[in-house]
Amino acid sequence: MYQDAAVFTSSDEKGSAMFDPENPPELSVTRWVNSRQPLSLKALKGKVVMLMAFQMLCPGCVQHGLPQAKKIAEQFSPEEVVVIGLHSVFEHHEVMTPAALEAFMHEYSWPFPVAIDAPGGDTGKGLPKTMEAYEMRGTPTVLLFDSAGRLRRHYFGHVEDIRLAAELMGLSIEDANAPREASVALERRMHSTLLDPNSHHGHDHDHGDDCGCGHDHGDHGHDHGHGHDHGHGGHKHK
Amino acid sequence: MYQDAAVFTSSDEKGSAMFDPENPPELSVTRWVNSRQPLSLKALKGKVVMLMAFQMLCPGCVQHGLPQAKKIAEQFSPEEVVVIGLHSVFEHHEVMTPAALEAFMHEYSWPFPVAIDAPGGDTGKGLPKTMEAYEMRGTPTVLLFDSAGRLRRHYFGHVEDIRLAAELMGLSIEDANAPREASVALERRMHSTLLDPNSHHGHDHDHGDDCGCGHDHGDHGHDHGHGHDHGHGGHKHK
Amino acid sequence: MYQDAAVFTSSDEKGSAMFDPENPPELSVTRWVNSRQPLSLKALKGKVVMLMAFQMLCPGCVQHGLPQAKKIAEQFSPEEVVVIGLHSVFEHHEVMTPAALEAFMHEYSWPFPVAIDAPGGDTGKGLPKTMEAYEMRGTPTVLLFDSAGRLRRHYFGHVEDIRLAAELMGLSIEDANAPREASVALERRMHSTLLDPNSHHGHDHDHGDDCGCGHDHGDHGHDHGHGHDHGHGGHKHK
Amino acid sequence: MYQDAAVFTSSDEKGSAMFDPENPPELSVTRWVNSRQPLSLKALKGKVVMLMAFQMLCPGCVQHGLPQAKKIAEQFSPEEVVVIGLHSVFEHHEVMTPAALEAFMHEYSWPFPVAIDAPGGDTGKGLPKTMEAYEMRGTPTVLLFDSAGRLRRHYFGHVEDIRLAAELMGLSIEDANAPREASVALERRMHSTLLDPNSHHGHDHDHGDDCGCGHDHGDHGHDHGHGHDHGHGGHKHK
Repeated sequence: MYQDAAVFTSSDEKGSAMFDPENPPELSVTRWVNSRQPLSLKALKGKVVMLMAFQMLCPGCVQHGLPQAKKIAEQFSPEEVVVIGLHSVFEHHEVMTPAALEAFMHEYSWPFPVAIDAPGGDTGKGLPKTMEAYEMRGTPTVLLFDSAGRLRRHYFGHVEDIRLAAELMGLSIEDANAPREASVALERRMHSTLLDPNSHHGHDHDHGDDCGCGHDHGDHGHDHGHGHDHGHGGHKHK
Repeated sequence: MYQDAAVFTSSDEKGSAMFDPENPPELSVTRWVNSRQPLSLKALKGKVVMLMAFQMLCPGCVQHGLPQAKKIAEQFSPEEVVVIGLHSVFEHHEVMTPAALEAFMHEYSWPFPVAIDAPGGDTGKGLPKTMEAYEMRGTPTVLLFDSAGRLRRHYFGHVEDIRLAAELMGLSIEDANAPREASVALERRMHSTLLDPNSHHGHDHDHGDDCGCGHDHGDHGHDHGHGHDHGHGGHKHK
Repeated sequence: MYQDAAVFTSSDEKGSAMFDPENPPELSVTRWVNSRQPLSLKALKGKVVMLMAFQMLCPGCVQHGLPQAKKIAEQFSPEEVVVIGLHSVFEHHEVMTPAALEAFMHEYSWPFPVAIDAPGGDTGKGLPKTMEAYEMRGTPTVLLFDSAGRLRRHYFGHVEDIRLAAELMGLSIEDANAPREASVALERRMHSTLLDPNSHHGHDHDHGDDCGCGHDHGDHGHDHGHGHDHGHGGHKHK
Repeated sequence: MYQDAAVFTSSDEKGSAMFDPENPPELSVTRWVNSRQPLSLKALKGKVVMLMAFQMLCPGCVQHGLPQAKKIAEQFSPEEVVVIGLHSVFEHHEVMTPAALEAFMHEYSWPFPVAIDAPGGDTGKGLPKTMEAYEMRGTPTVLLFDSAGRLRRHYFGHVEDIRLAAELMGLSIEDANAPREASVALERRMHSTLLDPNSHHGHDHDHGDDCGCGHDHGDHGHDHGHGHDHGHGGHKHK
């Protein structure tokens, strides 16, 4: 359920191909739905961004992830916190088409823009490109970017409203031009303020049938080639 | 929300083309999903049948109608009460295809068979044939058939679990071979036992954005040409 | 969660002091709240009665049992199905007083009459008399009486709306003057129509902290002197 | 539903008896329940404090307020954010006694300490003293104190989890020893980040029967003697 992005960890051991949360890749998008114009992480710098990666036929996304994104969009000012969806189709490609997504958006009236993640692989049926670049394990996945454009959180599966809202406020208090040390201090404070959900014994929605759709890396020849801990409850990028 | 089928009303005034709930039309189905074999109302005679007409992209169906059908299927014995879905697509035809429905059924694991309503009109984009034959106004719609194959209830929109469960029990107590008077007596008893939801002041989900998808008859040249009073929660066919 | 009353079982083996569901004891009531006049099972003969035994400080009662009783009261006609509460205090006697119950009824606006179960034991702090007479194991407990005044169901803990509504309809279809064989036949039909919840693997709310308050028989010197199976999910009176 | 405390407004016009959110009164408590030792606002300085004023027989408190306080207590570290309850009885005094509260706390297992608000008036049946000192309008009421002990928020009725969690994070990021200007800047940022709920058209739980219990000032000879705007959604202290 819970996975911190490896922000502000030492990168000494990282190879050149490693994912760098301080300089995360741009979204690979074929098209925007429900948006007057194309967006990009780069263009959104200066604001906190919450990205909800989903699939329109993923029950956990429809029942929990997208309604949560809607609540955030309704209660946070779009001047400070921008909510966007990312349709990252890694299964049933033939039916979760752009036209189907548009009908879905129309019927549910989701109030935020949605990017269509660029199809991946030779056939277009591999992992979508943004999903792969961010090493997402399935849907729903929530990414939080700070106003300097750095990836600060990466959650797979259910994340509590309370945690998400608290972290969004923390990030939006942070000055976009603050020195790196200020961000490290904020991280430290947020970590001491919110209890670690991994240490809870409570209900963990991570792999519940109706809460998250995971992709099987093997199926897609998807091998990151570096350390992952796929244990229940999240992995850490090393 | 609530509309009794016109069972056991005098039919003197009806013309020959009238819908006859005592002898309702067979389902027009192009294909069954999640069923080992094709089903039919005729073959199901002897059991009570609850039919949930839905569209896979209708929020009210996904959030309320289908979960309700699942609960009924889990708590009533399939030897007595059979739950079936009917995918009656009257909008977004190009994306709510049979293949899309199959992916939807797979992801949500709905535990009942679903019939695909036969496309209607010259182009296949009119009202689906069963939907038209039963004069459904939208989705979700619940139909209850007694064990003699007669249509006994027709609800458009949300119907309370309590009412639905009570009526299903009433119908399943009825003997399939009972004389017509016994059914009339049962109807009278059920009507005196359950309060009329139309007389409630409570929340009415009928036309809520996320509760039901209605079709616009005019769009489809859909004119029944006979008198119905559909009371609160609907329109009048003229 | 589920416990059928031993209605219509052979009583050959029963001793004279045995509980007889076909002739259940009258309620022992010190006072009625929210009722224009005192009620009694005897006076209610001719109608189906749903009795919800509760304690005002029992979380499972406040969160599930009483709201369920309210829904039943709102959807079934009081001419056919009468809903009554029974305040059966077996703990915290000093604070769950009649005056406290009245404030509770007032604040929550429960729409049904509530009987105060007569205090039991020498000190008035034993099991309340009706609770003891019906061998209830805690709160919430639901009892269903048919229109002939016989006890037909006895549930401890959570019971699904769908099952409860279906059984209430079954009982209200039954003729109060029907011969015993007709009731046996109805029981058989209801049993074949509804699936046995004990055979489910699903969530069972029976002993959940916030779903039911059980009393410890030993604490109250409460020993029925006959066979009980206190296994998870209900016992059968033998 | 929503009422900002008048923190950091000009106090030129305030008389000497005015409520001063920058120096709010200590809690008037007769006893603590569920706490190893008595607490006080003074002793809690250095931490953010969320106080939930409630009555044990107030449905809105039992259904929404207290469960929300429980969620906050479970997800925020008690080293940073302390959750406390305040039992502010302004009606049914004779049954919402300390002993009744203790039984309530025991049965519901609320995981935070609760203070019993000191009875007010000559008879002990006026507004409780803390409730009066803070000019609360009813229950549930949420107060948020910053780590310097100042009152920063005052909500009557329902407040969204998302808003509450976001504000708690904002306050816990603030340095207890920060100059006043830093707090003003933080307030400004929080106000620009969260949308004003008063401008929403959505469901407003403020005066719903089962969401909040208001007291009638007149009944208690409770007259603040200074300007109140009791309009829908809160008043501002002037």
